[in-house]
Amino acid sequence: MGSETKSAIIDATNSVLCEHGYAGLTVQKIADEASMTTAAIHYHFDTKAELLDAFLDDLIERFESKLTFEPTDPRDRLAAFLDQVFTPSNPDADGFPVAMMELKAQAPFQELFRKRFRELDGVVREVVGEIVADGIDDGHFAETDPDEVARHVATTINGAHARHVALGEPLDETRRVLENALERQLGWRPESGVAA
Amino acid sequence: MGSETKSAIIDATNSVLCEHGYAGLTVQKIADEASMTTAAIHYHFDTKAELLDAFLDDLIERFESKLTFEPTDPRDRLAAFLDQVFTPSNPDADGFPVAMMELKAQAPFQELFRKRFRELDGVVREVVGEIVADGIDDGHFAETDPDEVARHVATTINGAHARHVALGEPLDETRRVLENALERQLGWRPESGVAA
Repeated sequence: MGSETKSAIIDATNSVLCEHGYAGLTVQKIADEASMTTAAIHYHFDTKAELLDAFLDDLIERFESKLTFEPTDPRDRLAAFLDQVFTPSNPDADGFPVAMMELKAQAPFQELFRKRFRELDGVVREVVGEIVADGIDDGHFAETDPDEVARHVATTINGAHARHVALGEPLDETRRVLENALERQLGWRPESGVAA
Repeated sequence: MGSETKSAIIDATNSVLCEHGYAGLTVQKIADEASMTTAAIHYHFDTKAELLDAFLDDLIERFESKLTFEPTDPRDRLAAFLDQVFTPSNPDADGFPVAMMELKAQAPFQELFRKRFRELDGVVREVVGEIVADGIDDGHFAETDPDEVARHVATTINGAHARHVALGEPLDETRRVLENALERQLGWRPESGVAA
């Protein structure tokens, strides 16, 4: 079936990207990884950029599906969001944050990538903005601008990613910085690693 | 003279990096840009990694020299620091932030680069930490942990860089987010673009 093949190609793209990086990503390697011919891959994706666009689309979809919290206490939702973002989904795949960094560096030349990264940023900010707005309504968080908090959280997450890759700084350290900042903004401190 | 030649090679490296990116950086292009032979470049730098290490070292030195403020009001020093960081040194060189992003993505594989990025981060945090400590002593800033503020500022700057490259977000937007955060932390708001 077409969508199963596509999904296998996207999985293989993820593996090759994590192992060989953006520069080492070739259709041949993806074909080898997926046990397919390069022709089969070209049938589904005209260019490497289209393939990576589909890869990013899939990534955002999976990220979004993990962020669908039950309508529960906004404090729990915010803690769960931080757990989700600061816990690597696959601790073995050290190459994944590096590959994402490379794709971000390509965004100025690849409008498709930039669009996806903006989409991902939109998801993060919308989710955080809603949680904060609910928490203010419930009286759990201090009065503040939810969109401003969301933008701040998104920027700090971007900083955490860059520091993790460039400096080798553990994600937990940036998480602590963000928790301190949220405490100042919301008058409430998320408990680190409650869901871990 | 040796150091003049080195400095010409580093300038040429900067130009080639901004124009062609990390993947397009070759000793031949640097030689062409500097009007030298590749042999002359290899005489000074054994490998591309060593050359980029020298380039980053030079960058940090120039950055540090710009951050040497007169011992004046900590509020002015903090505003000047933000101007320095959020105003591109060369507005024409769009390629520069992209190239830095690429080098950060290489840091996990190039210990030399990682060391330099840690050094740069150390400079940022030390400068901010000192300004904040002085501002607290002077009674201009609220009591807080200067190192924590410095870490927060450094992380936000890293986020600003990533957002600028990946999303095309103007640096001014992240600056505003940081100013809001500093106002909460220090009880004082830097005036945007006073020195601009």
